[in-house]
Amino acid sequence: MSIHSVKRNQCHLVWDHSIQPILRVESGDTIKFDCLDASNGQITPDSTATSLTSLVFSSLDQVNGPIFVKGALPGDTLKVEVISIETADWGWTACIPGFGLLSDEFLEPSLKIWKLNKEEGFAYFDEEKGIKIPLKPFAGEMGVARKEKGPFSTIPPYATGGNIDTRHVTAGATLYLPVQVEGALFSVGDGHAAQGDGEVCGTAIETPIVAELRLTVVKDRPYTKTPHFKTPPINISNEEYYCTTGVEPDLRDAARSALRHMIQYLSQEHEMNPVDAYMLCSVAGDLRMHEVVDMPNYLVGMMMPRSIFSK
Amino acid sequence: MSIHSVKRNQCHLVWDHSIQPILRVESGDTIKFDCLDASNGQITPDSTATSLTSLVFSSLDQVNGPIFVKGALPGDTLKVEVISIETADWGWTACIPGFGLLSDEFLEPSLKIWKLNKEEGFAYFDEEKGIKIPLKPFAGEMGVARKEKGPFSTIPPYATGGNIDTRHVTAGATLYLPVQVEGALFSVGDGHAAQGDGEVCGTAIETPIVAELRLTVVKDRPYTKTPHFKTPPINISNEEYYCTTGVEPDLRDAARSALRHMIQYLSQEHEMNPVDAYMLCSVAGDLRMHEVVDMPNYLVGMMMPRSIFSK
Repeated sequence: MSIHSVKRNQCHLVWDHSIQPILRVESGDTIKFDCLDASNGQITPDSTATSLTSLVFSSLDQVNGPIFVKGALPGDTLKVEVISIETADWGWTACIPGFGLLSDEFLEPSLKIWKLNKEEGFAYFDEEKGIKIPLKPFAGEMGVARKEKGPFSTIPPYATGGNIDTRHVTAGATLYLPVQVEGALFSVGDGHAAQGDGEVCGTAIETPIVAELRLTVVKDRPYTKTPHFKTPPINISNEEYYCTTGVEPDLRDAARSALRHMIQYLSQEHEMNPVDAYMLCSVAGDLRMHEVVDMPNYLVGMMMPRSIFSK
Repeated sequence: MSIHSVKRNQCHLVWDHSIQPILRVESGDTIKFDCLDASNGQITPDSTATSLTSLVFSSLDQVNGPIFVKGALPGDTLKVEVISIETADWGWTACIPGFGLLSDEFLEPSLKIWKLNKEEGFAYFDEEKGIKIPLKPFAGEMGVARKEKGPFSTIPPYATGGNIDTRHVTAGATLYLPVQVEGALFSVGDGHAAQGDGEVCGTAIETPIVAELRLTVVKDRPYTKTPHFKTPPINISNEEYYCTTGVEPDLRDAARSALRHMIQYLSQEHEMNPVDAYMLCSVAGDLRMHEVVDMPNYLVGMMMPRSIFSK
């Protein structure tokens, strides 16, 4: 099996099966992708909240690729083994106006620059308060080309993957994607150093990454119609969660309510300002659907691990 | 602090603050509730799927109480410490027509009777296939009376709790409920031996329980507007999850799609019939909102722990 390399500038800004592949690999080959962060280099460690007001949105969420995998045909499945993800030593989280689950309540831009302690595997959210986030890096974007004639934005996820923003596809995970065009045309990007389920404020700990992935064509999984994945072995030791809930007749409203209640709780009990609490929920809190059948109300929870509060 | 007892027949079928309390306790007292299962005794270990067709729905989801907690006033919070939950040695899971996240796709009644191995803490879903579910008992219903004039069905959850069906409030957990009327008027019921986040087919492993709870009035949590909870310490060792996803512009559709894909996966890879797979998802699979901000599509996952497949 060969090992290939993809450079930062070998990227594209839309999903479109007419984009020419930058590489043709054998099934089972490994590729090392060097990916800029999702701002496409527009945000740097020196950026401030005002930098967000000049973001060029059409340059966001570039993905590196596409990779043509020989033998992949429509109806097949592309197996993506995540061998390793290495982050940079810095990252950012932003509240970007118009983006996020509570975008109508958080109107001002806000930016947080993180220092990532890669050796010890954490980043301080607030060193003085002793709040630190364990690093669990993954690529927010992994996808293959759609059969429909493009272009399609790289912002939403599709049945073919793309911006799945799924925090569980860390090193050791395996992602399965439905192939819709010959060669699959796989791309990756949007490095995240940590994220909660939901990515509620719209951003994770965004960071450049080097992602090493093995791509294999699988023929016997016709039921893979959307992304499937297998996590690596997960170990959780003596973790306690604090959870707030939303109880509403609409699932999105219930999720918004659960989030709003966690922000209120963090503001009161941990003396955070609301936008910081919102960003903390995005990088460390998990949205779960606790109950979806007792009509007319759904119950959604925002679960926060208490170990991030070391003091 | 005193310990009180509540019998099986000390129950009510609606939330209504005009229902007279069966007990008046001091804040900090402990109460041992003996609760029939949510069928209110209509389903027994000898029941079959045809028993479901004669279920009297108005008798379902009875809750034991209400308990008047002295000193509890509107605006306070009721702290419910779950000291212990003991199940019976049997349970049931049903696919009831008209009920469940895929009720339009599963039209026939189906009933599964479980034998609960309480000593070893598991129940076989399928002994021949070696599929077994760890028991993590909790009460599906815990709530206080609403300030609005009733009656209100005990089927949906409310901001005051009730049928929260939240699998995390096991022994060692603490639930916080917003008090809306004097005395709080707390009730509990709907024993579950195990359930996944979502309770997707509409039922868990339903079982009679004895629940020992401590009720305390808390004055300094004005931000508790819906149920909040703290989990007991959680330990997960080397667990791998297999996850299917749904990618849709509506959260409920995305959840339905993720579930449908898991049922297809289990049917193919574990040779289950679809209704069994649906029930397995309900008792062991978790619905999570992986991504809720990359518009126009949401990505919801159904995560299944692989350790339940011991063969």
